[in-house]
Amino acid sequence: MRIGVLGAGQLGRMLALAGYPLANDFVFYDMSGNPSAGLGEVIIDRNNEFLKDFLSRVDRVTYEFEHLPVEIAQIIAREKPVYPSPRALQVCQNREAEKTLFGSLGIPTPEWRIAENAEQLRRAASELGCPVVAKSNTEGYDGKGQAVLRSPEEAAEAWRSISHDKLIVEKFVDFQREVSIIAVRGEDGELAFYPMAENVHSEGILRYSIAPAPGLRPEIRDDAERYIRTLLNELDYVGVLALELFETADGLVANEMAPRVHNSGHWTMEGAVTSQFENHIRAVTGMPLGDTSARGVSCMVNIIGSHGDVRDILRLPYTHLHLYNKLERPGRKLGHINVLADSYEELVWRVRNCACFLPGAPELDCSLTRS
Amino acid sequence: MRIGVLGAGQLGRMLALAGYPLANDFVFYDMSGNPSAGLGEVIIDRNNEFLKDFLSRVDRVTYEFEHLPVEIAQIIAREKPVYPSPRALQVCQNREAEKTLFGSLGIPTPEWRIAENAEQLRRAASELGCPVVAKSNTEGYDGKGQAVLRSPEEAAEAWRSISHDKLIVEKFVDFQREVSIIAVRGEDGELAFYPMAENVHSEGILRYSIAPAPGLRPEIRDDAERYIRTLLNELDYVGVLALELFETADGLVANEMAPRVHNSGHWTMEGAVTSQFENHIRAVTGMPLGDTSARGVSCMVNIIGSHGDVRDILRLPYTHLHLYNKLERPGRKLGHINVLADSYEELVWRVRNCACFLPGAPELDCSLTRS
Repeated sequence: MRIGVLGAGQLGRMLALAGYPLANDFVFYDMSGNPSAGLGEVIIDRNNEFLKDFLSRVDRVTYEFEHLPVEIAQIIAREKPVYPSPRALQVCQNREAEKTLFGSLGIPTPEWRIAENAEQLRRAASELGCPVVAKSNTEGYDGKGQAVLRSPEEAAEAWRSISHDKLIVEKFVDFQREVSIIAVRGEDGELAFYPMAENVHSEGILRYSIAPAPGLRPEIRDDAERYIRTLLNELDYVGVLALELFETADGLVANEMAPRVHNSGHWTMEGAVTSQFENHIRAVTGMPLGDTSARGVSCMVNIIGSHGDVRDILRLPYTHLHLYNKLERPGRKLGHINVLADSYEELVWRVRNCACFLPGAPELDCSLTRS
Repeated sequence: MRIGVLGAGQLGRMLALAGYPLANDFVFYDMSGNPSAGLGEVIIDRNNEFLKDFLSRVDRVTYEFEHLPVEIAQIIAREKPVYPSPRALQVCQNREAEKTLFGSLGIPTPEWRIAENAEQLRRAASELGCPVVAKSNTEGYDGKGQAVLRSPEEAAEAWRSISHDKLIVEKFVDFQREVSIIAVRGEDGELAFYPMAENVHSEGILRYSIAPAPGLRPEIRDDAERYIRTLLNELDYVGVLALELFETADGLVANEMAPRVHNSGHWTMEGAVTSQFENHIRAVTGMPLGDTSARGVSCMVNIIGSHGDVRDILRLPYTHLHLYNKLERPGRKLGHINVLADSYEELVWRVRNCACFLPGAPELDCSLTRS
């Protein structure tokens, strides 16, 4: 099948690597003018002049990035199947719509307010009780467009720094750890869930994902599966969906979802029987889903800003290196390393060893190192 | 690194799939006029008009097929590193040179003779004692250009049917099973050996490879490693080398070698920590080698001639499908399925189940099913 991918970054690249062995071909459609990692034909089209041409050459369309115009997805959907649907895209790129959907489906979220000016932001912070997190309602990712307010008086400054016309303000969640669940839904409604991951962020960017999340209580896992199942079915979703959650003393609180393969699921490439990339492609092409079980325990280590010494990393027998062919730039995701082990104890040791070769990698600080 | 691959079939395709995540790019150079499965840019050049252009765009050259003119490899080697070396290529495409090398290195082979006409073939069959196998000295693969002589009187007919000006005649080996060992040597001489595979052929074409080879005695494994180590070092080899062997009551007898990634090593894609494809790329680009250990037990099932029902195959949770994007044709390798399991008993059951969906797949007849 010929699959069109909106976007040409590393996620599209890894979708293609997983999809070629299932007899698919790929055409990437880049609207940024700066495709970083496409693998196959890339159509660069900042003004949508060649959209018709792109569509004439593909059977199905998917995307690797949710911050693209919904109108484009809607136009495409009139001619070719788009998975996940434009509705999923619309919800995921608007925090207010997302939180409203979560609420209507019984998925717990932090208490939240909308602020459309600095005064509303101040009032929201005051009502919710600080600290609060203010986020641009649209377009934010990887910690961009966010600010933490320690007191309502910081509202004016935060409003200026985020510089967006609509913010969502969330009560700070006192969480034990950040986790995520990734699930996939087939064209026929078949569902499969990956083991959950524990995620470690630093400066708003994911640094480590450990899977299966250590010491996860079965009822927590059941809750997460119930939440994401509800979302998948409600959105008549096809493909991989990621849901980021906070684990608190009172259970799970949803943070946000992403309508695509997700950085916290990169461990599945060697750490699960079928990777999230292959399962997304299977879903999008109407094929049966693959086994989502874990193979041992694993940790995904992001390579941020600098490649480090590739040779030293490859010398470690338990690492799997995935580079995106991108130039170094501070804060940029350049690749990731999947570290595999037979036990969590061994995993921690291996991850620390591996991180030695990555300049600027933060110390692994997770439930395994704290207990 | 930019890697040039001579040939554009499935082996080159799988090399590229393994090599992109290690920050390599690929250009394929096809001299057949019929590239089947290149992934990346393919230069079709039947008359070597664009060889200079090809070379100007790559840093290193490797190949996926040993039946290409040695002169081309030698010309290339004057401008860019070619791995494995033209000498390895030369030896591997000439059965007489190969057997002579085996002999000089103490690697047992079947007793053999050269025949340059039907009368010499008759005499060889008579001296060696029938049955014998006659093979074209060059260019044969997948059982093509071969004949079995049950008596010396069949020489004239066999000579005509093979239709080649030089044959190698081998005494028939009374073997228990066919096995192979795959090893890789780095640019700095580092060596790594994969667990051996048991191979099941039908009509001269590999159908199944089971790895690690069940019930293999340690001394047999030691012999195989010693043989291939000797070959790798003697040829100052860089990359993956495959050695096919017969296991007999008296130990191993070498059949032939292939200076490339090999069909009997396709199980390594999910069945080993590092695949043969990734290790070949690591070697060719001067990187440290990856861990060659097996993950559980696995069986590679070739898809020959017809794709079968892809949907049914994908529905089996323990299968990994690798299609080459080739059109169906009798006897053509269209893809393979890696079946994984935790025990050989489970593996046999799973392979049989999987083979049900492949039209024309022979019954699995191997050491596991015979004992």
